[in-house]
Amino acid sequence: MEAPSFSSFEFDTNRPLQTQLQHQLTQWICSGRLPPGTRLPSSRRLAAELSISRNTVTIVLEQLKSEGFLQSIQGKGVYVAADLPQNINRPSTVHWHNRGGLPELSAFGQTLNKTPLLEHSEILPFTPGIPDLSSFPHKTWLQIQRRHQDRINLMGYDGNQGYEPLRESLAEYLKLSRGVLCKPAQIIITQGAQQAISLCAQLLLNEGDSVLVENPGYMGARKAFLARRAKLISCPMNDNGVDIDAMQRDHIIAQTSPKLMYVTPTHQYPLGGILTASQRLKLLDWAATHNTWLIEDDYDSEFHYFHKPIAALQGMAEQTPVIYMGSFSKTLYPALRLGYLVVPEALVKVFVQGKSFMGGESPLLTQAVVADFINEGHFVRHLRKMRLLYQAKWQHLNHLLNHQLKKPVRPIQQSAGMHLAIEIPGVDDQKLKQNLQQKGFGSSALSSYYNDQPTKTGLVLGFANTTRYQREAGIEALKSLL
Amino acid sequence: MEAPSFSSFEFDTNRPLQTQLQHQLTQWICSGRLPPGTRLPSSRRLAAELSISRNTVTIVLEQLKSEGFLQSIQGKGVYVAADLPQNINRPSTVHWHNRGGLPELSAFGQTLNKTPLLEHSEILPFTPGIPDLSSFPHKTWLQIQRRHQDRINLMGYDGNQGYEPLRESLAEYLKLSRGVLCKPAQIIITQGAQQAISLCAQLLLNEGDSVLVENPGYMGARKAFLARRAKLISCPMNDNGVDIDAMQRDHIIAQTSPKLMYVTPTHQYPLGGILTASQRLKLLDWAATHNTWLIEDDYDSEFHYFHKPIAALQGMAEQTPVIYMGSFSKTLYPALRLGYLVVPEALVKVFVQGKSFMGGESPLLTQAVVADFINEGHFVRHLRKMRLLYQAKWQHLNHLLNHQLKKPVRPIQQSAGMHLAIEIPGVDDQKLKQNLQQKGFGSSALSSYYNDQPTKTGLVLGFANTTRYQREAGIEALKSLL
Repeated sequence: MEAPSFSSFEFDTNRPLQTQLQHQLTQWICSGRLPPGTRLPSSRRLAAELSISRNTVTIVLEQLKSEGFLQSIQGKGVYVAADLPQNINRPSTVHWHNRGGLPELSAFGQTLNKTPLLEHSEILPFTPGIPDLSSFPHKTWLQIQRRHQDRINLMGYDGNQGYEPLRESLAEYLKLSRGVLCKPAQIIITQGAQQAISLCAQLLLNEGDSVLVENPGYMGARKAFLARRAKLISCPMNDNGVDIDAMQRDHIIAQTSPKLMYVTPTHQYPLGGILTASQRLKLLDWAATHNTWLIEDDYDSEFHYFHKPIAALQGMAEQTPVIYMGSFSKTLYPALRLGYLVVPEALVKVFVQGKSFMGGESPLLTQAVVADFINEGHFVRHLRKMRLLYQAKWQHLNHLLNHQLKKPVRPIQQSAGMHLAIEIPGVDDQKLKQNLQQKGFGSSALSSYYNDQPTKTGLVLGFANTTRYQREAGIEALKSLL
Repeated sequence: MEAPSFSSFEFDTNRPLQTQLQHQLTQWICSGRLPPGTRLPSSRRLAAELSISRNTVTIVLEQLKSEGFLQSIQGKGVYVAADLPQNINRPSTVHWHNRGGLPELSAFGQTLNKTPLLEHSEILPFTPGIPDLSSFPHKTWLQIQRRHQDRINLMGYDGNQGYEPLRESLAEYLKLSRGVLCKPAQIIITQGAQQAISLCAQLLLNEGDSVLVENPGYMGARKAFLARRAKLISCPMNDNGVDIDAMQRDHIIAQTSPKLMYVTPTHQYPLGGILTASQRLKLLDWAATHNTWLIEDDYDSEFHYFHKPIAALQGMAEQTPVIYMGSFSKTLYPALRLGYLVVPEALVKVFVQGKSFMGGESPLLTQAVVADFINEGHFVRHLRKMRLLYQAKWQHLNHLLNHQLKKPVRPIQQSAGMHLAIEIPGVDDQKLKQNLQQKGFGSSALSSYYNDQPTKTGLVLGFANTTRYQREAGIEALKSLL
């Protein structure tokens, strides 16, 4: 079989001819336009027909031979390889076209496919979870980074547990600041909080296990448990957060015997309640009695403004079933993607294995910079500075909310953290959030933090990354919308 | 009840007294030494007893009151809170001590706990998978990084799909260099290859599904599939890699109808075979007929020394069930922890969702630097330089292996990649690897790449990160061990 004319090849003068010729010939072969067994013209004739150099043609033909698209037959010429499947790219003969699609997703994949995708929106004033990015000490950071930048032992593969000097600095910091009792060997560095919760879900839960979550609570945790096909049970709540007395009386909890509980005792997310020491001890007791893992998410305990935060659950008793987690997203910045777990010694191995199976080592250079940032005192200094800054912002926002908005719209007051939740009874808070966004301000709808039917509506306002002017303008905008 | 004497408190002069006093009092309360209802001495008496300032004592008592450990009773004094649970920390009454342990792990966690933990060893000459770290263009990298370092929009949360400018650069690069047909919107940035495979496993496989893997093959992929509780089926192999004709005749494959196949067509890992174009087309045809997802891991296709690598499976036909993956671990360096997936358009949403459920966004700053590194031509220049460098190293090592070692010890020759596999029949290659490591040289045992009973023994030697002297000394050391 002789080849058709090649004169319809079109070349783009901005790209290498060789690449283009190779691509076009391959496409013609794959599409069946040059079927197996077709004889090609000689390189001289082909070069003339295409008005390109013979050298280019020869190189491409050699490449296609080495790839198995073409074959030389001694004394006869160059042919499209006879053993190629016919018409690979012709829709009419390709099976997946006939069956109308790709293979199936997993059951989990199918569920996700039905879940609406949360639009990723840009950071606006009042977007929750964002620290004051303009106060980050870039200069110090860069100085430390330059020291480590070309260290060859920070360029290879990390052990899955995380960079040891960082785990050492963290163990010391967590002991002093949060009363966490741990050795560096109990710390697992993770890629932010989501991977930390996800690892717990995979390693501690079987499909269908029950998990007790705060309601309202942190959406990211719910997602990680749903990804493990767990059953979510809402925990009864009071102003302090989870209501341990009500938990003990709860029939659903008694019947489902939750395998794990996810809790934010130091600053309930998003309402801001704080469990007292006695409630913490009761919670530990409850977990021990019910043989339930506790994940203690200590996500913003660094920012309490009038007292030191209450010590972490993890350190209140020995041998507790507590897995403590935190991240540098709030204390440094989110895009660092660095978090940590403190696990009981008996669980270290399985978490390190889990990371090696699921993926998720963190860049070594970043870990080394954070370790020095802590060791050299910059971290504590930065936190002290941010605490004062956020306290002033909190007071200002609180004042605005109390004076600018009409009752019963009020902050659900807690003097901590980087956000304020405000209750706005009977409002369509999703709509309100969208309207506020159109005016250039971020927020989250309070109803979106609930597992089920929300019992409160309102907004969550992140204030850490706002200026005085933005707070005033934002509350003005909110006022006009209510 | 009156408190016992506090004179046994011991203070460390190097740490803040306040922190220590608070910690000790909390511990005494939690351990039952100061039971609920105990009356504390006045702050003045306590200060005198401990020989510290009354001010310090007052601050600590206030903090413990705010935490709920202590309570003031008007006109009577300060007491240990009456509502605290009794003896929280006394082993005899704590339930988990009685039951001898923590709650259970998941079934997967239990399996991992029984799997031996791979020791993380330092990078040595010949450790596979490490590029020439000393040739990395740190100066250029830092220059680009400085431009982006304090950009506030690189400090927040990323959309889960990955930084758009990086996806644009990658789409262009993959089209030109690998014939991958994709829009930037089909690219998902991952945290290295392991997360990429792990996502595929979660989103495409149900528990118990069969997965076809190369044997010998990449351990990381096997781990990700096992983490999804999949059944691994070994694919028949020949010198080119997977043997498609044999696959079609294979009874086990026919019976188990694999849901997914993981394949390294451009440089079989670790043996180095290369599938010809016709074999690639047959493989696509097979996957379509059997309704099987193909994961094409193109892990080191940048390093082919005598021809350009054969174009990726992904781009050979339209609407294929191929998921293409690669990473920057070999082309830049491993600790960057940056990889990518190219998925069919219909799968974009589920992969983005999957990432948001499982965790794993990559640091934005790194993504921005890599995007510019590609756009400004540094990437292609770096690859060209490395290709020449590795080619020379490959030739040298190949020469040493052929001339220094006795038959039948020979490289399984393929002129590509960053490692050479050598077959050493009948040797305990795990032992050999350990002995070589004691002499200061890395390698992997060929037998460790098999699913089951290995059919070949030998070593895999990474040569990209070796000097001429190290190659000579390493082969000398190997010779003395054989």
